[in-house]
Amino acid sequence: MSSQYPGRVSEIVQSQIVIGDDEIFDAHVGGKLSVELRAPLDTQRALSIAYTPGVAQVSRAIAADHTLAARYTWAHRLVAVVSDGSAVLGLGDIGPAAALPVMEGKSALFKEFAGLDAIPIVLDTKDPDEIVDTLVRLRPTFGAVNLEDISAPRCFEIERRAIEALDCPVMHDDQHGTAIVVLSALMGASTLLGRDMTALRVVVSGAGAAGVACSKLLLAMGVSDITVLDSRGILHTGRDDMNAVKADLARSCNPRGLTGGMVEALDGADVFLGVSAGVVPEELIATMAPGGIVFALSNPDPEIHPDIAAKHAAVVATGRSDFPNQINNVLAFPGLFRGALDAGARRITQQMMVAAAEAIFSVVSDDLAPERIVPSPLDLRVSEAVAKAVAQAAEASDA
Amino acid sequence: MSSQYPGRVSEIVQSQIVIGDDEIFDAHVGGKLSVELRAPLDTQRALSIAYTPGVAQVSRAIAADHTLAARYTWAHRLVAVVSDGSAVLGLGDIGPAAALPVMEGKSALFKEFAGLDAIPIVLDTKDPDEIVDTLVRLRPTFGAVNLEDISAPRCFEIERRAIEALDCPVMHDDQHGTAIVVLSALMGASTLLGRDMTALRVVVSGAGAAGVACSKLLLAMGVSDITVLDSRGILHTGRDDMNAVKADLARSCNPRGLTGGMVEALDGADVFLGVSAGVVPEELIATMAPGGIVFALSNPDPEIHPDIAAKHAAVVATGRSDFPNQINNVLAFPGLFRGALDAGARRITQQMMVAAAEAIFSVVSDDLAPERIVPSPLDLRVSEAVAKAVAQAAEASDA
Repeated sequence: MSSQYPGRVSEIVQSQIVIGDDEIFDAHVGGKLSVELRAPLDTQRALSIAYTPGVAQVSRAIAADHTLAARYTWAHRLVAVVSDGSAVLGLGDIGPAAALPVMEGKSALFKEFAGLDAIPIVLDTKDPDEIVDTLVRLRPTFGAVNLEDISAPRCFEIERRAIEALDCPVMHDDQHGTAIVVLSALMGASTLLGRDMTALRVVVSGAGAAGVACSKLLLAMGVSDITVLDSRGILHTGRDDMNAVKADLARSCNPRGLTGGMVEALDGADVFLGVSAGVVPEELIATMAPGGIVFALSNPDPEIHPDIAAKHAAVVATGRSDFPNQINNVLAFPGLFRGALDAGARRITQQMMVAAAEAIFSVVSDDLAPERIVPSPLDLRVSEAVAKAVAQAAEASDA
Repeated sequence: MSSQYPGRVSEIVQSQIVIGDDEIFDAHVGGKLSVELRAPLDTQRALSIAYTPGVAQVSRAIAADHTLAARYTWAHRLVAVVSDGSAVLGLGDIGPAAALPVMEGKSALFKEFAGLDAIPIVLDTKDPDEIVDTLVRLRPTFGAVNLEDISAPRCFEIERRAIEALDCPVMHDDQHGTAIVVLSALMGASTLLGRDMTALRVVVSGAGAAGVACSKLLLAMGVSDITVLDSRGILHTGRDDMNAVKADLARSCNPRGLTGGMVEALDGADVFLGVSAGVVPEELIATMAPGGIVFALSNPDPEIHPDIAAKHAAVVATGRSDFPNQINNVLAFPGLFRGALDAGARRITQQMMVAAAEAIFSVVSDDLAPERIVPSPLDLRVSEAVAKAVAQAAEASDA
């Protein structure tokens, strides 16, 4: 889509950014994280406890009973935030070194919103075999893996194989974190508008990590009329230029057998979900059914400026913090991993994801408004509610 | 040696341990480290700076100029403390999970003594290829590698190959950290005793990581009469049961062509250096030359009780915190890595190691006593002096 309307939205949105580069760069000098001691090591006695000879007792005990590692090390509560830098934000394949500030930020969010320790791991390989092997070798180092900013379709294989290979929670946040928050926002919007979510006609612009996961989660929730588009147009079973993941989506979505592009997809649609870093012009949004829903989630530049979308839609959301209804993964991942680790879960199931979406929705469900279909990312009640719901779902499904 | 005198020293030394298991285990609950934010993330503005959209500016800048990663991430000051758990303290091959409390402790020491962030990385593989490959893939994650508790002779190959493969400081602390502190202690003891260090007859009990590195560093410093023993006796060129590293040592040490065991080695020796987890009986220490030096460094059980050794030697040191003259690697590694990182060094050279040993010695050189040949591990002047000397040596040698 992006090539059709270059620059248009960017120019509008750039004017909204009010934080200067100097302030941003100054805040990143030396990085955003530090490793700290949980108790001081400033006496001979403290040294003898935390290091030799005392620590030998703890190591001996774990050697005799590996389950004790969960109690006497930090690993079982530690999230590894892992990226190969191949699909960073909307910036593309900028490599692991340039991805690191994002992974540091993500690690900081785990601490701020869920009290979980997290370390950024950036990998100088894009080979799925090597990435999975590396995680397997690192396994005793951490308790969960948040895969991040890995390009599609590699991200699907890497996540699937990492889940198979590791006996701990593994999730690619660009897929499922986004899907969870989108689901919670759609619960909010459809409740606010008095609509049956499952009856909505949904258009998903983007068949990468987020688009695929959102489509699958909405399908699982009973939303049946979903049309997914990639850069070449609508996914349909007549196309022969799709990877296996897209071909699978073409079979399970698009029940009306649409072909063509955004013009055909948006005509009469109830929901536009943009997760493509593309652009959609006002003329097409205007062809949606009245009282529609627009989630223009590309970051930093939404597919359509929210003020323009609002002329044609009843509810508008973006991924940005400087507009209402920010659909931000931080609503989901901290509490999701916290709940999984609290429950001692060995995997993250779809039930846990749905529980997370319902928990996010529950925070605003009594107080919905067109500019409040999701909680604020700063609302600390969210991660607590998500963690509790996810832990319950994990225990209920023996995850 | 250990099979000859089982239990003997242990029984004496055990009585010195006055910290109860409960206190040790309580101090380890949840691990000893935490990841903290360097600035709070509790406002929309802070989120927009540290995460999206602000962080994209920083990632873009690093993608355009990789050298900026050193300024705007934590990686270039971050030490990875890496172990496969194959030779943990004196406990042997207890595996990565059981090694983790030691690596957490080591990471804590980096922070406490040098202000460096460090993360424990424990690997579920003992294959040298896989370990080196893993470090290469992780390279953008950290700025230096402290290899730890990896068994000999694998540790020699792994360190050599990791140094070749990575463009950052890499050091196996069990080898070189020990060698540096032993060298500084020998400087202290020989100065105190008015002896020419290079003329001392030195016996090294143990031909593992520490024994090999100590012998090589002392040789490099001009100590020419070094006799090294492994569990089968003195290394000499007539033996055909040695690995390549021991065979190399047999050629460069043992100038008098000694054969046999500890009886032959200690007869008339000036220095006993124990790094073997073995035991040496009083009768043999008594055969050393008068006014000798005993470094019984096995932990937690020294090769000979220091009070017994003191009956026959002028200076006695151990690795333990509950006796005088603790020869503890913490005197070296925090300042060594700090100095290397301060100087932007890409490797750790022998000149830097010698500079570190001289800096440790310099802290006590005006105030030497039989029970004070090395500074206290808690003396914060040490890491500062070491860091400064190492950084100067790195710059002088363009490391």
